[in-house]
Amino acid sequence: MASTNLIFTDRAAHRAWLASQAKLPAGFRVGTARFEFLPREAPKPAKMTLTLIALDRPTEDFAAMFTRNALPGAPIIIGRQRLGEQSLGAIIVNNKISNVCAPGGVEASEKICGETARLLGLDAAQVLPSSTGVIGWTLPVESIIGALPQAVGALAGGSIMPAAEGIVTTDLYPKVRRADVGGGSIVGIAKGAGMIEPNMATMLVYILTDLAVPRAGLRAALTRAVETSFNTISIDSDTSTSDTVALLSSSRVACDDLVAFERALTQVCRDLAEDVVRNGEGVRHVIRVAVREAATPEFARALGKAIVNAPLFKCAVAGNDPNVGRLVQAIGKYVGAHAPGTDLSRLHLKLGGVEIFSNGVFQLNPGKETALVAHLKSAELYASAPPVAGVFTAAVDFPPHERCVEIEVSLGNGPAAVTVFGGDLTHEYVSENADYRS
Amino acid sequence: MASTNLIFTDRAAHRAWLASQAKLPAGFRVGTARFEFLPREAPKPAKMTLTLIALDRPTEDFAAMFTRNALPGAPIIIGRQRLGEQSLGAIIVNNKISNVCAPGGVEASEKICGETARLLGLDAAQVLPSSTGVIGWTLPVESIIGALPQAVGALAGGSIMPAAEGIVTTDLYPKVRRADVGGGSIVGIAKGAGMIEPNMATMLVYILTDLAVPRAGLRAALTRAVETSFNTISIDSDTSTSDTVALLSSSRVACDDLVAFERALTQVCRDLAEDVVRNGEGVRHVIRVAVREAATPEFARALGKAIVNAPLFKCAVAGNDPNVGRLVQAIGKYVGAHAPGTDLSRLHLKLGGVEIFSNGVFQLNPGKETALVAHLKSAELYASAPPVAGVFTAAVDFPPHERCVEIEVSLGNGPAAVTVFGGDLTHEYVSENADYRS
Repeated sequence: MASTNLIFTDRAAHRAWLASQAKLPAGFRVGTARFEFLPREAPKPAKMTLTLIALDRPTEDFAAMFTRNALPGAPIIIGRQRLGEQSLGAIIVNNKISNVCAPGGVEASEKICGETARLLGLDAAQVLPSSTGVIGWTLPVESIIGALPQAVGALAGGSIMPAAEGIVTTDLYPKVRRADVGGGSIVGIAKGAGMIEPNMATMLVYILTDLAVPRAGLRAALTRAVETSFNTISIDSDTSTSDTVALLSSSRVACDDLVAFERALTQVCRDLAEDVVRNGEGVRHVIRVAVREAATPEFARALGKAIVNAPLFKCAVAGNDPNVGRLVQAIGKYVGAHAPGTDLSRLHLKLGGVEIFSNGVFQLNPGKETALVAHLKSAELYASAPPVAGVFTAAVDFPPHERCVEIEVSLGNGPAAVTVFGGDLTHEYVSENADYRS
Repeated sequence: MASTNLIFTDRAAHRAWLASQAKLPAGFRVGTARFEFLPREAPKPAKMTLTLIALDRPTEDFAAMFTRNALPGAPIIIGRQRLGEQSLGAIIVNNKISNVCAPGGVEASEKICGETARLLGLDAAQVLPSSTGVIGWTLPVESIIGALPQAVGALAGGSIMPAAEGIVTTDLYPKVRRADVGGGSIVGIAKGAGMIEPNMATMLVYILTDLAVPRAGLRAALTRAVETSFNTISIDSDTSTSDTVALLSSSRVACDDLVAFERALTQVCRDLAEDVVRNGEGVRHVIRVAVREAATPEFARALGKAIVNAPLFKCAVAGNDPNVGRLVQAIGKYVGAHAPGTDLSRLHLKLGGVEIFSNGVFQLNPGKETALVAHLKSAELYASAPPVAGVFTAAVDFPPHERCVEIEVSLGNGPAAVTVFGGDLTHEYVSENADYRS
């Protein structure tokens, strides 16, 4: 699925590669500001980064997709309205607090949009707000407004890196992917890293292009691209209240080949989606499940998700334990609960290219067990380090490779094929989410 | 939901209470045998316990419910056939290997039933087989047949404790619950402890009664009792391939009051279901979610399960962190994905009796935060102990209390109410399932 097969030996090598990918398309500038504040609901100060993405002139050509969570954040409610506006000139993003169901949340976001617009010479309705972080807390509106001039003053073209670094929360590293098409480019950034089973889009993704594709074409292409990228991943089965993917065109470069544009956009989305999984909270193995010969794509995707979301199988992968019984359990659980009439007599399973199940029974022996353990170990991103003061922390801050635990599920029931990505369930995930307030 | 509110200060006190509950109904005997064997698929020896439950004479009055997992174990396939037989005389249970999709699995189970029947003077079709443990491995049939005479020789009336202890795998302690009705009794035993979101029944539950209730009445009562007990719990959202609940009557005592019988049966099932959660793999907090004012019971149950299965919320509970944003996320995720038209404007949430959400927004302040932390700590079964050689192990082998994390979800959309039980997500769960092959 990924367009690359990258290997990084250290953080510096990864950062250098990111920098090489980060050239902003024409017509965009980014700037950030970082400040400390005291949350209303918490006893001690916290830090927040504002990230501003600005177009040199407002564009009519923009697209956005948002979470299907039924209790969405205020920026999602506003963002859906912005889709009906004539043009968009900027995106203002904050991390740390997601502004979800907080009293006065919509008014707070609108006030920030208004002040951003005033500083940039726009209307408030030309600014798309985005927030990520703790759910339930209220935005420190006055602190944000106080920091906005610094973000505006920092606006610069050239590199998207400041924005890629500004939007993160528990991410271990920034995520940037690009594609060059004709004389233009498509550049996207993403943040993860938990509460990720996007139902429409992943947490925060911004994709910028200078290729001139009209609004209707952008929106259709984004919908299709999201379907086969962000909607096929799951870190922990939890669907964020803030999922957003926005695509903005500065329309500086003529686009002669819409098919090539959509192909490139889809690849950028897939690469970013895979990056989000690879840097999922606590993820030490990326699990790639290729479901084939399914009756429908919907069935294939749901079955793949059931596998990457099965806690016992995820734990086995974390332990480099080829407990394939738990894989079969996950398949049977999904089919039994959601499609009990399905014929599983032609079910065929491979793990790491090794056949483990066919003709209705397991195909196991000690030699295969050895091969499966080796496959799991080769796909490990890093070995778990002993906890410090009871807390397990990721041992890397860069992605050392792009290898996955490879699972192939053939159903023999039809023509549909979908590939789904997920991660293992580790002590690092529990530490991230239980051992302190994220 | 539980009929009791027990507190145990140590293992001895818990065992003494179990013994007081364990008197076998008239007409039943239990016996066990333990032995070592070399699994075909593994490099080192393992230990297995056989548990035999025998009626003094075969009964026509029996009921059983099985997993809805679409890839069930051989004993499930055979058990469904046994439901059509005229009578049942014994149950033979093994732990360690669950006999799921193993080559020749059905033949292996039938051979064991045949040998059990020969020793007891029954037909093979009068023996119900049950297996739990590793999925994918093959049963050591010859070793089991070699150990059967020892189990038969150990058969004794009086106490169900040997069976309650014989069927466990990763359970920390045996589970026994009883109800006395008229001059008879209902006594049940259960094993957990992972791969628990029963879809029909929980892993292995055997309920014995001497009350004379005919087959049709038993089966109807069991179906209803399971619906509001085992089908409302989830440890980890994984549905076992071996879930079984069997109810056998020796028909020794006249049953004058079927309503009282079903009420008592339901209570035994609910108590056992709650016990299974309390002793779920790695569970340090039991989470009780009372969903009220839902449009339908199906919606209420599914929403409750979505909450107890949301990994981020489970981790927060493990950390005594009242991260109620993750609770709201879980509700929004479920509704957004499965019932997007649902009106959530009257959603009202309490945690530990404290209002945390109403009128569409969070109702939080630092004082409430303190109260919520205190509630979570009071519901903790034991504090996490530092890992030894990287492995987290439960710090208790008895249930110190029956307090739960109390969540109340009122929807304002109808008359339905369902209570669901689940557990937190802890380092102990990950260690149990990732740090070594269970």
